[in-house]
Amino acid sequence: MITTFVKLPACTPRSISSVRAVRMSDVRSRKISAQAIKLYTNPGSRGKIPEWVLSELNLPYETVLLDMRSGEHKAPKYLEINPFGKVPAMEDGDLKLFESGGILLHLASKYGQLPQDQLSKAFQWTLFANSTLSPALFEKQAQMPQMLLPLDKILAMTKYLEGSEFSVSDIAVGSYLLYLPLFFPDLFSSGGFIDKYPNVWRYMKEIVERPSCPDAYKEGMISAVQASSSKNSGGNPLSNLFKK
Amino acid sequence: MITTFVKLPACTPRSISSVRAVRMSDVRSRKISAQAIKLYTNPGSRGKIPEWVLSELNLPYETVLLDMRSGEHKAPKYLEINPFGKVPAMEDGDLKLFESGGILLHLASKYGQLPQDQLSKAFQWTLFANSTLSPALFEKQAQMPQMLLPLDKILAMTKYLEGSEFSVSDIAVGSYLLYLPLFFPDLFSSGGFIDKYPNVWRYMKEIVERPSCPDAYKEGMISAVQASSSKNSGGNPLSNLFKK
Repeated sequence: MITTFVKLPACTPRSISSVRAVRMSDVRSRKISAQAIKLYTNPGSRGKIPEWVLSELNLPYETVLLDMRSGEHKAPKYLEINPFGKVPAMEDGDLKLFESGGILLHLASKYGQLPQDQLSKAFQWTLFANSTLSPALFEKQAQMPQMLLPLDKILAMTKYLEGSEFSVSDIAVGSYLLYLPLFFPDLFSSGGFIDKYPNVWRYMKEIVERPSCPDAYKEGMISAVQASSSKNSGGNPLSNLFKK
Repeated sequence: MITTFVKLPACTPRSISSVRAVRMSDVRSRKISAQAIKLYTNPGSRGKIPEWVLSELNLPYETVLLDMRSGEHKAPKYLEINPFGKVPAMEDGDLKLFESGGILLHLASKYGQLPQDQLSKAFQWTLFANSTLSPALFEKQAQMPQMLLPLDKILAMTKYLEGSEFSVSDIAVGSYLLYLPLFFPDLFSSGGFIDKYPNVWRYMKEIVERPSCPDAYKEGMISAVQASSSKNSGGNPLSNLFKK
């Protein structure tokens, strides 16, 4: 069964708790008016990346959760949206789109009102995040320093990737960084990551505080901050993380 | 030493033979006027992807060839353009960009005059090409059928990825397909690829005929067509490939 959530546009720091579950049949029978943007996702997918952009842009959208254990992502109806059967995908009116980074760029380009150069920087950082950074972090970890050392240098000079303002590029790259505490919590309890990449760590703590940041990333960072501070400083990780 | 080529905007089917080699010192001393777009590349890099887009859009540009054996891609001057020391990269006026797919999307977005939906499809296919298709073709080949079977179905229904017209999405995806004969010539001499993915093969032959297509891809396809036809039909691969 495909269940859907209607996500309300007003976002709070705990935005996932503000969604309302509805059944697919309700949407079909128009008890709930269909919204222009539908995000097909699954908690284990990269759907968090477009979720973050949608929240940041304050766009109303509908979430359709796919049950991957029962193969809903390989069902003919879903293959019409993404013929490769991967999650996430999106419908925006008549436009069907797949690839998390492609959806992110669509939203940034259509709704973000960015000048050309900023949009092009978003292209660069999104391609970097999905095709260069992600494999180095999650598959070929010997390459991790080749990615994180230059990133650390950049973030030693600027607050965010493109300067003093948070941008869609930070969602593209930051999402993969914020997957690290969820996939490899030991990186943070050992202190090695934080000592080696202090500016990347500062940046991760900075961006996770945004109200629009998905809860899963916040939860991963709470654990990472707890692990690091129980080793290093003993402070309260929750207050470190959520209070300015 | 960094040598540069000034690429002339008028492209022929043998466009690489029409470039004129110049020395970096000539450019520095303005004997040759600097053009707005500079492509930093190397014959072994993915620089062929932006080259194809530049030729297709008929944009004048300057090619700066990096000697990777002497480490020019790790020299401080180049790291100002791409801090990760990877090739290709681009300068377009004051804008510095890296990631082949990011450069492709920059050119498509700035110079391609595409409506939003077509641009968004280019985002989708470029992310697919660089982060999903490329690893499946070149690193995790067990996944090759999961990518090529759906692609074959799509290309059974349409001439190009987005319908009857060649688009930047075809450059994004087609480039990786056209790397296959260069990296894995045996795929084509055995006939397995062509039998399994006949529509992908038809598409590869279609797009490689474009005058703007980089020579290296054409050469790979000449060999692949030769290998397949010496096994299957015995026709002249050159005439199959270049004559309509």
